[in-house]
Amino acid sequence: MDLVIVGSVAFDTIKTPYGFVNRVLGGSATYCSISSSFFSKDVGVVAVVGEDFDNKYLRYFLDKGIDIRGIEKRKGKTFFWEGEYSDNLNDAKTHKTELNVFKDFNPTLPGEYENCKYLFLANIDPDLQNKVIQKVKNPKFIGLDTMNFWIQNKKDSLLNVLKQIDLLFINEGEAKLLTEESNTIVAGKKILELGVSRVLIKRGEYGAILMEKDNVFLIPAFPLEKVIDPTGAGDTFAGGFMGYLAATEDKSFENLKNCILAGTIMASFNIEDFSIKRLNSIGFSEIKKRMVKYIKSISLDGEKFLKQI
Amino acid sequence: MDLVIVGSVAFDTIKTPYGFVNRVLGGSATYCSISSSFFSKDVGVVAVVGEDFDNKYLRYFLDKGIDIRGIEKRKGKTFFWEGEYSDNLNDAKTHKTELNVFKDFNPTLPGEYENCKYLFLANIDPDLQNKVIQKVKNPKFIGLDTMNFWIQNKKDSLLNVLKQIDLLFINEGEAKLLTEESNTIVAGKKILELGVSRVLIKRGEYGAILMEKDNVFLIPAFPLEKVIDPTGAGDTFAGGFMGYLAATEDKSFENLKNCILAGTIMASFNIEDFSIKRLNSIGFSEIKKRMVKYIKSISLDGEKFLKQI
Repeated sequence: MDLVIVGSVAFDTIKTPYGFVNRVLGGSATYCSISSSFFSKDVGVVAVVGEDFDNKYLRYFLDKGIDIRGIEKRKGKTFFWEGEYSDNLNDAKTHKTELNVFKDFNPTLPGEYENCKYLFLANIDPDLQNKVIQKVKNPKFIGLDTMNFWIQNKKDSLLNVLKQIDLLFINEGEAKLLTEESNTIVAGKKILELGVSRVLIKRGEYGAILMEKDNVFLIPAFPLEKVIDPTGAGDTFAGGFMGYLAATEDKSFENLKNCILAGTIMASFNIEDFSIKRLNSIGFSEIKKRMVKYIKSISLDGEKFLKQI
Repeated sequence: MDLVIVGSVAFDTIKTPYGFVNRVLGGSATYCSISSSFFSKDVGVVAVVGEDFDNKYLRYFLDKGIDIRGIEKRKGKTFFWEGEYSDNLNDAKTHKTELNVFKDFNPTLPGEYENCKYLFLANIDPDLQNKVIQKVKNPKFIGLDTMNFWIQNKKDSLLNVLKQIDLLFINEGEAKLLTEESNTIVAGKKILELGVSRVLIKRGEYGAILMEKDNVFLIPAFPLEKVIDPTGAGDTFAGGFMGYLAATEDKSFENLKNCILAGTIMASFNIEDFSIKRLNSIGFSEIKKRMVKYIKSISLDGEKFLKQI
C-alpha cells in the first residue's frame, strides 16, 4: 500500500450563501482519499461508518480505485455534521454534531496497510493518531492534521504526536493558537521548535506557507471566481499533497512545493460545488489545464530580476 | 522629471502594541517619495505643509535626492493624524484628524513637473487627482491610490479619474466596496470593466494581486517576523513600485511583476519601525539582500512540474 488515509467518513448538511444540501457524503477521509486518488493509484482508507451508510456511497471510493477494506461498518449511525457558512465563506457555524459511531472510532489497519509508505492522519483525537503511528511499520512520510479542539483539550497528546511526524498541516489561526503567537511566521518557527520536521500553514483563499528549518516557501491560492462550499477544502488539499508525494516519492523541499501545487488545485475544484460533486466530475486533463493557468498566474523570473537590480 | 508624486506630508501620532510616537513625520507623499528614491534618481513631490513644518524635515527628502520644489508652505498647521493599531495590526482606529492646510490643498506643479514621465497620485480628493492629470503633458504611466471615503462620497469623480490612469492601487476591502462584490477576483475584473487599464489589489500581509485584461498575477508578501507599525505600508509599496517602473521604463506585465517585488520589499522595511525611521537607515545592499531572500521564498520551478505531471 502506497498511501493510507485515516479520518472520518460522514454525512453533512450544509448551508452556504449559494445553496443547501442535506445529508451528503463528507468527512475528512472522504475528501482526502478521493483527492489523492488523482495522483496515487494505491490508496487505502481507514474510517468507520454506521448502518445507515448505504453501500452506494462506497462506489465513490471504488470508482477511484481506492481500497476500502479499512472502512469499518458498525452498529449505530454514521458521523453527522450540520453547519452553515455566512457571506465571507470563511468560518462555518456548527448547528449540530452527532459523533455516533465515530465516538468510539478505534482505527484498525488491515494487514497490508501497516506497510504503507505514506500515511495521512486527518483531524482525529491525537491519541488515536498516535496509536496508528505505532502500528505502521516503516513509513517514509507521515502527514497530520489537527484542530482547535485538540489544541485546547489534548495539547500534551498532540505535542507527543508532533514529534513523530514529517509534516503538520495546520490553519493559520490554529498555528497561532497552538503557539500563542500572533505573527504567522514566528508561529511557524515555534511549531518547528516543538519537534515537528515541517509545517504547512494553510491560509485559505490566501494560500499557504511551508516551513522547515532554514527553508520557507509562500504561495498564493488559485484565483477562484466562485466558491460554493468550502467544506473539505483542507482535506482535499492534504489529499492532493499526499497523493502527489506518494506518486513521486521525493520529500525534498523542492518537491514538497509541487505537492502544494497539486493540493491547491484539488482544493480549488472541491470548493466549486457541494460534497464531492466537483471532484467526481473532473478528469486529469482538467486538472492539468488548471495547473497551467495557476503556474502562469504565480510565476515570475526572479533570477532575471536580481541580475537587473 | 522622471517621477512626480502628489499626496500628503503630515505629522502622525501613533500607538501600536509595540510603542508610541508623537508628531512624527508621515503622509502618503513622504513614504512614497522616499521609497521611490531608492530606484529613481529623479523624483519630485507635490504636497502642502504648514508653518509648523520645520525645515529640518525637508532634509529627509533632500538626503534622498528628492526634488522638493513642489512642497508648498502655507499659513496654518500641517495635516495631523492620530491613530492606534490593535493587536492584529490590520486596522487603525483614528483618534483625531486635523486636515489643517491640507483642507485647501490645491496641487500646483512646478514647470518641469508637468513634463514628468511617471505620475503617482496618492490618496487625495479625486477632483484634485483629475486636476493634476489635466496638467501633466505627456505621462507614460499614471498610478493612483484612493480610499473608502472617496468611494463612498465621491464615486462619480473617482470613476472619472479611473478612466484616465494606467494602474489603480487599491486595498482588497476597498476593491470589494467599490464593486459591491465579495469575491476578490471578480471585484478586480469589475474594476477593469470600469475602464482602468490595470488594478493592483493590496492584501496586506497576504501580498497582492495584479490584474489586467487576460492577465493575472498573485504574489505573497515578504514573510516578516516583526511588524512595529503598518502606517504608510501602502504608500511605501506604491513608491517602490513607481520608482522601479520609472527606472526601468517598461510597463509590460512581466516588468510590472518586478515593480511589485520592489514595492513589497520597501513596504516590508517600512513597517519594521515607526515613521520613516527604517527607510532612512537602509542602504541598497540591504534591500538587495532581502530581495534575494524574498525571491527564494516564493520561487518554484513551474515548468519542470508541468513536464512531470
